[in-house]
Amino acid sequence: MDFAPYIRDIEDFPKPGVVFKDITPLLKNPFAFQKAGEALLGFTSNMKIDKVVGVDSRGFIFAPMLAEKLGAGFVTVRKSGKLPYKTISEPYDLEYGTGTLEIHSDAIEAGERVLVHDDVLATGGTARAVCKLVEKLGGEVVQCNFLIELTFLNGAEKIKEYQKEVLLQY
Amino acid sequence: MDFAPYIRDIEDFPKPGVVFKDITPLLKNPFAFQKAGEALLGFTSNMKIDKVVGVDSRGFIFAPMLAEKLGAGFVTVRKSGKLPYKTISEPYDLEYGTGTLEIHSDAIEAGERVLVHDDVLATGGTARAVCKLVEKLGGEVVQCNFLIELTFLNGAEKIKEYQKEVLLQY
Repeated sequence: MDFAPYIRDIEDFPKPGVVFKDITPLLKNPFAFQKAGEALLGFTSNMKIDKVVGVDSRGFIFAPMLAEKLGAGFVTVRKSGKLPYKTISEPYDLEYGTGTLEIHSDAIEAGERVLVHDDVLATGGTARAVCKLVEKLGGEVVQCNFLIELTFLNGAEKIKEYQKEVLLQY
Repeated sequence: MDFAPYIRDIEDFPKPGVVFKDITPLLKNPFAFQKAGEALLGFTSNMKIDKVVGVDSRGFIFAPMLAEKLGAGFVTVRKSGKLPYKTISEPYDLEYGTGTLEIHSDAIEAGERVLVHDDVLATGGTARAVCKLVEKLGGEVVQCNFLIELTFLNGAEKIKEYQKEVLLQY
């Protein structure tokens, strides 16, 4: 299925000169939404996965569905201060600024096989920080998958040591 | 299934005197996570639902799973400035402050039957604002469901004109 017709370009969002890829037309269409979930799941065929990590907040949309279908647990990575329990943190650079990402210190057990999901791979700063958090807890990142990759930002380079899968490239 | 053992009390979060209900132990346990999704889905039995609205950001965890299983579209309600396309907005009061919620103006068609989902029903301010947004677009709120209700905050009163379903009450 071609998902491109369900992705909307928004010019000058979140700042002038940026063309934002809006996934909400895909989400609100029941058929395209189901098919996108199936396609992301298809990337993980034959993989044993213990935890799926979703990145706050649009990463939360598909990651739990993947976890549920894989029989895995779901784990959130969030911006600093959002998680209530003990956390470990990792600084990150992203397309529009910098920040700190956190994961609960009990979210992943040593040796667990982890799928990392986010909606968009942009500069790769977020994805790299998430992988580092997983590894700090002793987890193994078995795949990073994304709905969209903005190839001109070279994010793939930042996560080149991990398997990467993407539905749509721009 | 009793989900209470998977909900963790965090004292003094996000501010002194508040006991926060942390759902991450439930999310990371594959069995409890699947069963919670099934239980939320069970609340909608025999209902025709066109759209499921999830509230940023923990409402994004179960709402898309519900949408996918119901054959419905998924719609996000987010805090002001987060949605990239044309929006309508609604002010809201919440347990720890005030704000504005937004929905894309093309997210829901007039006459559509809408399920509203969030993780926690606290004061009801958020849920009420989300229902108002749905109605401004011509949608009909057929149910509001939640993982958790903090009954001592009387949120149910604020959404008494809607059908409400909850997995766990405190």
